[in-house]
Amino acid sequence: MVNIGIIGYGYWGPNLVRNFFLAQDCCVKAVADARYDRLAQLSKMFPTILGVTDAVDIINDPTIDAVVIATPVCTHFTLAHKALSARKHVLLEKPMTASVEEAEILINLAEQKGVLLMVDHTFLYTGAVQKMKQLVEERELGNIKYLDSTRINLGLFQSDINVLWDLAPHDISILNYIVDERPYSVNATGITHTKNSIENIAYLTVNYSSGFIAHFNCSWTSPVKVRMMLIGGDQKMILYNDLEPTEKVKVYDTGYTYANDEEKKQVLVDYRTGDIHVPKLATTEALLSMANDFITCIQEKKQPVSSCHLGLDVVRILEASSKSIKHSGTEIILETPSVPVIKKGYEALI
Amino acid sequence: MVNIGIIGYGYWGPNLVRNFFLAQDCCVKAVADARYDRLAQLSKMFPTILGVTDAVDIINDPTIDAVVIATPVCTHFTLAHKALSARKHVLLEKPMTASVEEAEILINLAEQKGVLLMVDHTFLYTGAVQKMKQLVEERELGNIKYLDSTRINLGLFQSDINVLWDLAPHDISILNYIVDERPYSVNATGITHTKNSIENIAYLTVNYSSGFIAHFNCSWTSPVKVRMMLIGGDQKMILYNDLEPTEKVKVYDTGYTYANDEEKKQVLVDYRTGDIHVPKLATTEALLSMANDFITCIQEKKQPVSSCHLGLDVVRILEASSKSIKHSGTEIILETPSVPVIKKGYEALI
Amino acid sequence: MVNIGIIGYGYWGPNLVRNFFLAQDCCVKAVADARYDRLAQLSKMFPTILGVTDAVDIINDPTIDAVVIATPVCTHFTLAHKALSARKHVLLEKPMTASVEEAEILINLAEQKGVLLMVDHTFLYTGAVQKMKQLVEERELGNIKYLDSTRINLGLFQSDINVLWDLAPHDISILNYIVDERPYSVNATGITHTKNSIENIAYLTVNYSSGFIAHFNCSWTSPVKVRMMLIGGDQKMILYNDLEPTEKVKVYDTGYTYANDEEKKQVLVDYRTGDIHVPKLATTEALLSMANDFITCIQEKKQPVSSCHLGLDVVRILEASSKSIKHSGTEIILETPSVPVIKKGYEALI
Amino acid sequence: MVNIGIIGYGYWGPNLVRNFFLAQDCCVKAVADARYDRLAQLSKMFPTILGVTDAVDIINDPTIDAVVIATPVCTHFTLAHKALSARKHVLLEKPMTASVEEAEILINLAEQKGVLLMVDHTFLYTGAVQKMKQLVEERELGNIKYLDSTRINLGLFQSDINVLWDLAPHDISILNYIVDERPYSVNATGITHTKNSIENIAYLTVNYSSGFIAHFNCSWTSPVKVRMMLIGGDQKMILYNDLEPTEKVKVYDTGYTYANDEEKKQVLVDYRTGDIHVPKLATTEALLSMANDFITCIQEKKQPVSSCHLGLDVVRILEASSKSIKHSGTEIILETPSVPVIKKGYEALI
Repeated sequence: MVNIGIIGYGYWGPNLVRNFFLAQDCCVKAVADARYDRLAQLSKMFPTILGVTDAVDIINDPTIDAVVIATPVCTHFTLAHKALSARKHVLLEKPMTASVEEAEILINLAEQKGVLLMVDHTFLYTGAVQKMKQLVEERELGNIKYLDSTRINLGLFQSDINVLWDLAPHDISILNYIVDERPYSVNATGITHTKNSIENIAYLTVNYSSGFIAHFNCSWTSPVKVRMMLIGGDQKMILYNDLEPTEKVKVYDTGYTYANDEEKKQVLVDYRTGDIHVPKLATTEALLSMANDFITCIQEKKQPVSSCHLGLDVVRILEASSKSIKHSGTEIILETPSVPVIKKGYEALI
Repeated sequence: MVNIGIIGYGYWGPNLVRNFFLAQDCCVKAVADARYDRLAQLSKMFPTILGVTDAVDIINDPTIDAVVIATPVCTHFTLAHKALSARKHVLLEKPMTASVEEAEILINLAEQKGVLLMVDHTFLYTGAVQKMKQLVEERELGNIKYLDSTRINLGLFQSDINVLWDLAPHDISILNYIVDERPYSVNATGITHTKNSIENIAYLTVNYSSGFIAHFNCSWTSPVKVRMMLIGGDQKMILYNDLEPTEKVKVYDTGYTYANDEEKKQVLVDYRTGDIHVPKLATTEALLSMANDFITCIQEKKQPVSSCHLGLDVVRILEASSKSIKHSGTEIILETPSVPVIKKGYEALI
Repeated sequence: MVNIGIIGYGYWGPNLVRNFFLAQDCCVKAVADARYDRLAQLSKMFPTILGVTDAVDIINDPTIDAVVIATPVCTHFTLAHKALSARKHVLLEKPMTASVEEAEILINLAEQKGVLLMVDHTFLYTGAVQKMKQLVEERELGNIKYLDSTRINLGLFQSDINVLWDLAPHDISILNYIVDERPYSVNATGITHTKNSIENIAYLTVNYSSGFIAHFNCSWTSPVKVRMMLIGGDQKMILYNDLEPTEKVKVYDTGYTYANDEEKKQVLVDYRTGDIHVPKLATTEALLSMANDFITCIQEKKQPVSSCHLGLDVVRILEASSKSIKHSGTEIILETPSVPVIKKGYEALI
Repeated sequence: MVNIGIIGYGYWGPNLVRNFFLAQDCCVKAVADARYDRLAQLSKMFPTILGVTDAVDIINDPTIDAVVIATPVCTHFTLAHKALSARKHVLLEKPMTASVEEAEILINLAEQKGVLLMVDHTFLYTGAVQKMKQLVEERELGNIKYLDSTRINLGLFQSDINVLWDLAPHDISILNYIVDERPYSVNATGITHTKNSIENIAYLTVNYSSGFIAHFNCSWTSPVKVRMMLIGGDQKMILYNDLEPTEKVKVYDTGYTYANDEEKKQVLVDYRTGDIHVPKLATTEALLSMANDFITCIQEKKQPVSSCHLGLDVVRILEASSKSIKHSGTEIILETPSVPVIKKGYEALI
């Protein structure tokens, strides 16, 4: 049995509580939030959970094994650092931290303390992403050539992070999960329509040495909600529409080949369209699977699907995107990671 | 009566012939195409039109008043230059030319010769674009803040121009038609999946001094066809989906306002959602309207809706986009036009 | 404070519990279900609610004021009769009873005992139906001419009632709520693909003296889920698509007029298409509104929106539809109600 | 070479002319229409075709081999009778005739004269219907259980035939083409909103002895256009949406099985959902294929896909539907055909 404390009971908090409530082998002991009205809501829906106003009460509680941090990004580092220092396992909401440096310090600290540090990239646990991962791994698509993502809606303007940091982590985590190649550089452009210089519309291109390309279109100011991703291979292509109730993933038997016509000095490209296949997806609740993965990995000393290393790679791209926007879209080369990627059990290093 | 010759009878040629056939006060006299099978098709469908293999036969024909050029872009300049020199009115398919320099030379030549030079940006004549132009002009949207366009499908790989030059002219012409402000700079990224270095996927951001931003997503390698444009104002927003049979333009009574909370040092943004309105659109055939505009402007010595100046502005953005792609997405500042924009009759300068 | 007992904790039970949990001025004291595993689920999610295996324990409990009955239709009459006899207010799930006779007995009993008898036609409380009711009442549609409903999906085959009794109550309740005219007759056809003679596909036409017509298409064996209703007036028409996340109700400025051309002995009909309007809908939770209506009507001795009289009228149409199916689609004239429709407070009769 | 005359140049006429223009081995010699403006339009678009005002000029022309009749239904019999009597091959627009009796007389006359009588049920030649026919024949769907069709839009009110005679022939022809079993009876209901007693909304159920059922929902007064058909088998089911540009036919790996639980005296039905498959369809132009079939069958003395016998079966159902509507929805048993169905060459009988 893993005893859990949750810090932050805002928009996402109730979902976390309910799913850890349903998860195996764990018990939600306490929730911290500085706002009294949020704690009142908590006690109405979950009368058995202790509500506290100070996160320190959770971090210092010796009966609590693991801490879930669902607060604004700017507070992630300090809270997670305290919790890891107190040898608590930590689950951080996405994005992991406000910088690569913060993420690397936390990863090193977790390894040093021998505890699990995980990031909640919930989408990785959906039936849709699991199916796409499988299709790419089994080389159904052939060589993958591009990923194109649009995630726009009329959304809450965040006051601490821009629209890429807010919305793109979902799609970048999917990119990093599905594509093995390490990205080479990024370009990003964007605009702010408020006075606080925080972009509410932004576009991100991620470049790869192999010729693969990924693009992300994010906006808080679209009148319509779009959650669409294309993944193109030279054999087949995927359309992933997360708003479709049942047909989220469509596989198009579509591809293109090219030949060099030496005589005419031109390139001939043929494309091909065929049948479309809509695979049935697993209908598991992604957030519950994520919660179960957290608990299981604590108990079995494993790295979860949504690991801190994947979380760091997402922050690396986000940090570079902010730098590119600041420099008018200039290409920013992604640095080699200073923290080695560990795929094994998290205990391996201690 | 305006006598017309059409050069190029490829994919678009038959549509041009049929619509000039139906247009008022004009007669399609001859069509030139070097391919015999194309001329055979012409004579089957339109037995009264003369087919010739050499464009010069049309340009030199003294009974022909106006020449329509529907050949690959790389040939536009030479053919148009010859036709204008022979004092023919000229309609060029989009994009106008392969460079800003070429376009400027042609514009100057047309003015010097006192003939009409027009570019076929057909979309400007659709009921949808006309309605959007009207909504923006009447300030229904308030201050417009962004335009976001996606034009992707499984398309023919062109061998002379990249995907932006092929697909984006439609959307850039709409941008230039609807937005009065002159763009400041562009950033573009893209990738080629063939050996000829011609991008088949590309992304373009057009930046404006006022904070307006436009973005274009173009691809020949999407398994699904998307023709979608968002135009956002602070009062209302438009979704333009060209694939919708009847509800192409939707107007969302949606907007956002922001306030500076001095005390808390943060920006508060409120957004608002309201009703949606789907205006009935004029059902005129756009290509026929374009043809009629060409004929009327020749006869009345006026500038058409789809003028050579608008065509030049499209090429200016395309040329800068190619430069940006070549320089890894670096911002390219758009030069001030050396040809003055003329909104009056084309005869004004001669 | 109204103390509530709920009989039946099947598919719909948890939703009822949760919403009465959230409703004002009421307390869910006990839930009855004969299945131990259902009671175990109850105590996990709602540890404060008493679970009992025998419904009689709830009906006989003097501290319970009102009983919610969410069991199979065939048990509605007996359970409701017992509860009303014990002077409990009763909320019955739809359809109200298995016959008109049963419904009339219950209505008379409730009036005699001076308690509230209500039927849970949840859809009447949705923002969509409220908006449609308003549009019809304000005569936005002009004279309404037809209602056409399709409610099909791959659904659970019920073992006690056919597909019309299972699915059509939603749409018939909307029909009866929106249309004032009393229906004249029904025709129904259908088919069973099992051995138990319970139709899994059925079609129902409801005829009105005025020329209004309503049609219902219901199926448990459709591979796709459709929840669509058209309501046509001679001025405007409504498309109600309940599966649309945001644009559930569309109002078409579309209509038709006809003229009698005496000379040519023919009827000329003109139709007109105009703009489409998508009104913003109230986003209240329908089931919670229904629960609140039940509590408020108990306290204020009023008739609810989803009254027992409306519930009876739904059963009247269903009963006639079964008779028509049994007689190969023959028209069945609807009898005049023997229970007077009361729109005032339920206490008025005692 | 087959010389063709076309009678009637209304809405559908130009499409017929253009496709017979493109068809192999035939020549459109003349078109008859009493309206001068229609003949003017003809001569503008097709200057080589002779326009006449009297159909008799076509029927009596000895150089014309075949007559296409695209006039109102009430004139089909007289015109076709004259043409067949003059030993012309005849193609009738759908529906074939205004009554079963008329159709049977024409079929007998055609056989007696040794000429081809064909009905233009164009939909049978679409890639979608061809694919569905193949799927049913190859027993991909298992035993087919139902067909459910909706064909509604804001349509022209016909002054001679009701909405079933106008719209349902498309869907009934598909039904008859795909389903081998002979229908047993029909029920139909409907309503007229004009003074001429011609239904503008109507519903038709076609019953089969085996338990198969077909239903048709037709309306001229829907604000939205729907062209949807479901065909359900116990192994797989088809959704055919004719308005989808590319994904017209979807095959759902969905089915249901039932077991009789003797002990509990109840029927247990299981349903199953699986993948969805969207087959690529042939992209042939249906009207051109129909025209080619007409010409080929004349030349090779074969019966076409869209034969007069299939056309008669459509009329048989339509005639019974009118009778059922007149008798308030009463079931009308379909009579056994008095004309034997011939699948072989049309010359077989002479």
